[in-house]
Amino acid sequence: MKTAARAPIALGSETALGRVFLVGAGPGDPELITIRGLRCLRRAEVLLYDRLVSPELIAEAPRSALKIDAGKSAGRRSARQEEICRQLVAHARAGRTVVRLKGGDPFLFGRGGEEALACAAAGVPCEIVPGVSSALAAPGAAGIPVTHRGLAGSLAIVTGHCAEGDRIDWRAAARLDTVVVLMGLSRLAEIVAALRAAGRAVDTPAAVIASATLPEETSVFGTLADIARLATEAGIEAPATLVVGEVVRIGETLGQVGQFGRLVEPRARAVA
Amino acid sequence: MKTAARAPIALGSETALGRVFLVGAGPGDPELITIRGLRCLRRAEVLLYDRLVSPELIAEAPRSALKIDAGKSAGRRSARQEEICRQLVAHARAGRTVVRLKGGDPFLFGRGGEEALACAAAGVPCEIVPGVSSALAAPGAAGIPVTHRGLAGSLAIVTGHCAEGDRIDWRAAARLDTVVVLMGLSRLAEIVAALRAAGRAVDTPAAVIASATLPEETSVFGTLADIARLATEAGIEAPATLVVGEVVRIGETLGQVGQFGRLVEPRARAVA
Repeated sequence: MKTAARAPIALGSETALGRVFLVGAGPGDPELITIRGLRCLRRAEVLLYDRLVSPELIAEAPRSALKIDAGKSAGRRSARQEEICRQLVAHARAGRTVVRLKGGDPFLFGRGGEEALACAAAGVPCEIVPGVSSALAAPGAAGIPVTHRGLAGSLAIVTGHCAEGDRIDWRAAARLDTVVVLMGLSRLAEIVAALRAAGRAVDTPAAVIASATLPEETSVFGTLADIARLATEAGIEAPATLVVGEVVRIGETLGQVGQFGRLVEPRARAVA
Repeated sequence: MKTAARAPIALGSETALGRVFLVGAGPGDPELITIRGLRCLRRAEVLLYDRLVSPELIAEAPRSALKIDAGKSAGRRSARQEEICRQLVAHARAGRTVVRLKGGDPFLFGRGGEEALACAAAGVPCEIVPGVSSALAAPGAAGIPVTHRGLAGSLAIVTGHCAEGDRIDWRAAARLDTVVVLMGLSRLAEIVAALRAAGRAVDTPAAVIASATLPEETSVFGTLADIARLATEAGIEAPATLVVGEVVRIGETLGQVGQFGRLVEPRARAVA
């Protein structure tokens, strides 16, 4: 057993070692980063950012900061990840404050665990700054609460784009009230088929939300019978989130009202 | 089929109608609210806040704002919820900017759906401002990534304190790689028994994290064999999050290093 009270790690000016902050940038809208995340970003001496991170957030790092595009190119994922870990450690060992900025939350399909372990192995201090995940924010932007009293008390979050060796148990996932699938657009028909094969009724409501929380956000509502076709017809592009379950009906209801969504104020200002 | 491009609702000064922002306050640390959430808060004319929301955040609302403690008293949950919905609508109809501030995310066990529907039924404009959920941030604070390449590609989030009629299918939840249970402390032994009965091995790693991201954060690591006893012995108090799965081992590894956790800087400042 280990019980750990929360003791901040003191890093005085006497230490030559840098530190790494693994920061969640949130689902897309740059205003959906946390206060703490923005603070870290503004102190960065080195910034490694992912492909989906908003340019407005990258611009928040000091002009003097070394900014590294760590967007992974397809097909060479693991090599890229090793290189990212190597760079995080090398810059921190050189005494720098390193910010690793990732879409969503660093610990949900963000490979933050690998980076935290690399820091730990190298003796580099590391902090996780959590972020708003698209798994909740994308449905939310379309008016869909992932849980709702009387409709859904459990939620499965899976990736449609999984690593070799990570098999999704669709039969289990389908039995939770709400199923959220991240990064599944390219395999949408296959995923829908898996959920139907797992016993989910063909008329189960489903929605796909693309570019959630960004100006170009688009959502498509349907059922497991037609959602894959509707998403294709609507020209939905990645990144997109699939939500399946009765809660999707709430988003349809709110969407019909026309008074639900992004209210202009207080958005009409730059990031603080 | 409905395809909706993201069109902000324009609210000019010509309208006498107010608006409602359902804002996620994040997992505990006031710095883990989003930029947008904080902005809404600072414009509130009426603030309805939950019991677990940080006093530092409540203090961010204007001094002139009407501040209403909407903390639910046990046993009268549904009556309280109706009253909250009634107040949101009444204040917005009187032309006020209303902020409903909730721990975590408004749409994950936050009853935000009910409040959004109440606004919709009354014709009151409503926006969801998502928040960092404890479902991810509590494990994260203990160094536990809820997914990890090769270890976990799927996640179940359930509540241990569910509404009548919302039955949790523990047998399905247990089959996802990682299981996160929110608000389950008072039923911890029962929940652990349900996961074991559902086929989860007795030596599956498990952790309980209490008051995550706050100075009094405490975490306990064990397995399904002993986590309930260890949490009791450690005097763990609500709010607490249970995490079950192989990913818990990563938190143990990071915890042993002693270089993982909250780094003093840049926390040593007040909220911006």
